[in-house]
Amino acid sequence: MAMAVVRPQIVLLGDSITEQSFRRGGWGAALADSYSRKADIVVRGYGGYNTRWALLLLHHLWPIPFAGTAPAAVTIFFGANDAALLGRQSEKQHVPLPEYKHNLRQIVSHFKQMSPSILVLLIAPPPVDEDGREQYAKSLYGDKARKLPERTNEVTGTYARQCVELAQEMQIPCIDVWTVMQQTEGWQKLFLRDGLHLTEEGNAVVHSEVLRALNGAGLAAEEMQLDFPHHSAIDGAHPEKAFQSQGCSSSGNVDAFCPEIASNHI
Amino acid sequence: MAMAVVRPQIVLLGDSITEQSFRRGGWGAALADSYSRKADIVVRGYGGYNTRWALLLLHHLWPIPFAGTAPAAVTIFFGANDAALLGRQSEKQHVPLPEYKHNLRQIVSHFKQMSPSILVLLIAPPPVDEDGREQYAKSLYGDKARKLPERTNEVTGTYARQCVELAQEMQIPCIDVWTVMQQTEGWQKLFLRDGLHLTEEGNAVVHSEVLRALNGAGLAAEEMQLDFPHHSAIDGAHPEKAFQSQGCSSSGNVDAFCPEIASNHI
Repeated sequence: MAMAVVRPQIVLLGDSITEQSFRRGGWGAALADSYSRKADIVVRGYGGYNTRWALLLLHHLWPIPFAGTAPAAVTIFFGANDAALLGRQSEKQHVPLPEYKHNLRQIVSHFKQMSPSILVLLIAPPPVDEDGREQYAKSLYGDKARKLPERTNEVTGTYARQCVELAQEMQIPCIDVWTVMQQTEGWQKLFLRDGLHLTEEGNAVVHSEVLRALNGAGLAAEEMQLDFPHHSAIDGAHPEKAFQSQGCSSSGNVDAFCPEIASNHI
Repeated sequence: MAMAVVRPQIVLLGDSITEQSFRRGGWGAALADSYSRKADIVVRGYGGYNTRWALLLLHHLWPIPFAGTAPAAVTIFFGANDAALLGRQSEKQHVPLPEYKHNLRQIVSHFKQMSPSILVLLIAPPPVDEDGREQYAKSLYGDKARKLPERTNEVTGTYARQCVELAQEMQIPCIDVWTVMQQTEGWQKLFLRDGLHLTEEGNAVVHSEVLRALNGAGLAAEEMQLDFPHHSAIDGAHPEKAFQSQGCSSSGNVDAFCPEIASNHI
């Protein structure tokens, strides 16, 4: 990347639900705010992608051996497209259930191979509101809209369970968005804006669950140092002092600036 | 930075108005969405900072000579704190007007020295709603709130003019947020939530002005390539083809993936 920085990176890898996470009220942007001056949130969301296609770009983005500093954490959020049904409008995106789990395992292994200390967080796909999908298709295509659903909540649930199961097998954290969302009455319209993608409320659920998982895995923003002094710690008459106070020279050696972050999280 | 990426970077350097730009409706998050899959938005906002303090961190973040790939663009958005009045509550942040301009020039020169082709975009501070500031102070401190304003719109305006003037002298683009916002009736409460920081509407003004400036300087998102194929370009039966179609091997050589972006914008 282009800058010498002291901040660790948290990468968001996924499909459109990740790609769109910087829209108004999006979970990615909210995460960037939660980790303000602590970590960089790097969005790598690819609308329409399934795990099979994700595997094709993985080696481009993170070749192994990896020359740079590996991210501190990565969220892997696929399944909504893999679960598209065969013989329906979105069948191009379909990935068979066993292959979905296999691909996810490959993706996780890739990151672990790149950096044994990286925190890998799996996120299972959200539930599907079939009525919402149908209304959305009609709003776009009217009478020409597809008659049969391209996704069902039940099938997507089988993908979510494989994701949860894989996390258990690999002993990594997982957020079961499919189950979590359905625990709230009216989840269909409250959390999903077109039966598949998230409303602001749905984004808030993902944001809060990701925060909780990162906190639980030792990457809480509250425990991370600011990259530079808080303005209240700066002496107006001698501002340079605050910039030297953490054992840091002003020689441009950024690793020395916040040694705790550099050693723990990068 | 930690990843091998093909996306150019757009850095947002500034004070709290930049630091908070990933909150709900924030201009930084909106920019990340506008450049989705085209560029990475890197936020480097430091609440309370003035140009004097910014100079103290510049060499830490972007040492010269710079070892990595320089950002494609940087927005420099200071002045709201430099314009704090002497002898008032926020006087620690005050920077004399001539020094503000001098410091800004140093910051711009630093980036130009790092990379002659970098697009440097100056942003002048927003106007100040003195009544809004007073109400905000009273909401926090009641009768103990400061009696005299710590900033005035008139004084901040003199800083904005120096910023605009410097941009003309250095022949770089500038957004005069101070002037632009005051062209809308009711700007005081419409664009500012506490007399100083931006509402969602205020963020939308900055977002749209930054987009316009980037477009005008040859960095329009519409003209930049996606980092990987759009899902509609992927053949379900032979997905690997789309990942090889731009003269790219699958060898992990990311620079070869999107040669136009690599040569024009990084």
